[in-house]
Amino acid sequence: MINVTNQISRRSLLATAGIAGLASSISTNLMAGHHEKANQLSLPKGTTILFQGDSITDAGRDKKKQIANQQKALGGGYAWMAASHLLIKNPQLNLTIHNRGISGNKVHQLANRWDKDCLDLKPDILSIMIGVNDIWHGLNGKYEGTVKTYEDDFLSLMERTRKALPKTQFVICEPFVLRCGAVNEKWFPEFDRYRAAARKVADQNNATFVPFQSMFDEAVQYAPPKHWAGDGVHPSSHGASLMAHFWTQSVQA
Amino acid sequence: MINVTNQISRRSLLATAGIAGLASSISTNLMAGHHEKANQLSLPKGTTILFQGDSITDAGRDKKKQIANQQKALGGGYAWMAASHLLIKNPQLNLTIHNRGISGNKVHQLANRWDKDCLDLKPDILSIMIGVNDIWHGLNGKYEGTVKTYEDDFLSLMERTRKALPKTQFVICEPFVLRCGAVNEKWFPEFDRYRAAARKVADQNNATFVPFQSMFDEAVQYAPPKHWAGDGVHPSSHGASLMAHFWTQSVQA
Repeated sequence: MINVTNQISRRSLLATAGIAGLASSISTNLMAGHHEKANQLSLPKGTTILFQGDSITDAGRDKKKQIANQQKALGGGYAWMAASHLLIKNPQLNLTIHNRGISGNKVHQLANRWDKDCLDLKPDILSIMIGVNDIWHGLNGKYEGTVKTYEDDFLSLMERTRKALPKTQFVICEPFVLRCGAVNEKWFPEFDRYRAAARKVADQNNATFVPFQSMFDEAVQYAPPKHWAGDGVHPSSHGASLMAHFWTQSVQA
Repeated sequence: MINVTNQISRRSLLATAGIAGLASSISTNLMAGHHEKANQLSLPKGTTILFQGDSITDAGRDKKKQIANQQKALGGGYAWMAASHLLIKNPQLNLTIHNRGISGNKVHQLANRWDKDCLDLKPDILSIMIGVNDIWHGLNGKYEGTVKTYEDDFLSLMERTRKALPKTQFVICEPFVLRCGAVNEKWFPEFDRYRAAARKVADQNNATFVPFQSMFDEAVQYAPPKHWAGDGVHPSSHGASLMAHFWTQSVQA
């Protein structure tokens, strides 16, 4: 039985999973989506990549020594794994990869530190993974924002970014949860509205969309939810590795 | 400083790292090697893949329930990670993926169980990662085999396999170590002879060669050896994820 987190069938999730630059040469029949053409990220020599987000991106990185490309500064999650795959596979590209994710962040907290932690770094590729705290902190009474707050704040952040960095390529990662740990029925169907908002933000900003929820909905066929994320929110090393694989496919497409 | 395990320079290791089907579209300038053309593995619908080897492949798999495609039966290492990436990214291919690695195995122990644990499974793609015990058990006095034993046994195993499975595509993974934990100067330069033997076996059998040592020699630029393999031999989840990425690139090339 597939763990589908909304009313969309697994097949239609998979059908849209291939859009927006994610298709590998062997999965072209997943390409049928609502986009007319897939966004494909270019990765020329000297590309600077920035990962932004919350604890899933942060993953214990050392914030005192923010040295590009080094594991300690990039943490232990999907951002570091994706970075290491790209760096080690393509030494000739001389990539520069940063991580500025901070645990607990919601969209408005990214905005508060955006000049220093994004615009000043002038990334050629900017990847944003944000949203789970926007709903989670609401569910546990710590935050009054709604899905409309999330979408409005995210659209505003992207508009500001596009104006400051008109040539930057964007990656927006789908918020996801696994049905275990801290994630219970109270999250739904509200969580699916946050996912839909993230996709809308991606679509309106010509961003590559990495469909992590669709990926994990498929993944639970092969291992239980807790294998991928013990508390349902923070990925294990196996969950992070899978995310890194899908993320790098999006830039290598 | 790059941790190079033999007299070959880092650049020449990298130059050969791209051969044999490993090149992605963005690393074509790593393609210059001594092969005239790269082997490219095909992955049509219904492909059966078998991972064979020692503890690095085994990685704690459940040997009582050998169910294809399931995490418990595939363990927690690179084989499972590579399998999960392929299965989840390409559901339409209906892949069947087995793991039959057993901890402690040397080549002659693979041969002892080859009918049941390889030939009977009729893999379309057979991946073999073997060699570290062939040298390690010699270094600690548990085994009298030499690099010639390793090469002869491996060539003999491959000849037997090609006769029984003439259409099977082969992947041979380079034995590797990180310079930490149990791995000290006594391993060298003997270890490099085992690596060269593995490459010779790959070349003589038209196998895709996955250059894990070259990969880890590059990886130590970004994180210390123990990050990739605490004891120098058995990869961490980060080491396994990197291996899975390189392995899947070899079949998606």
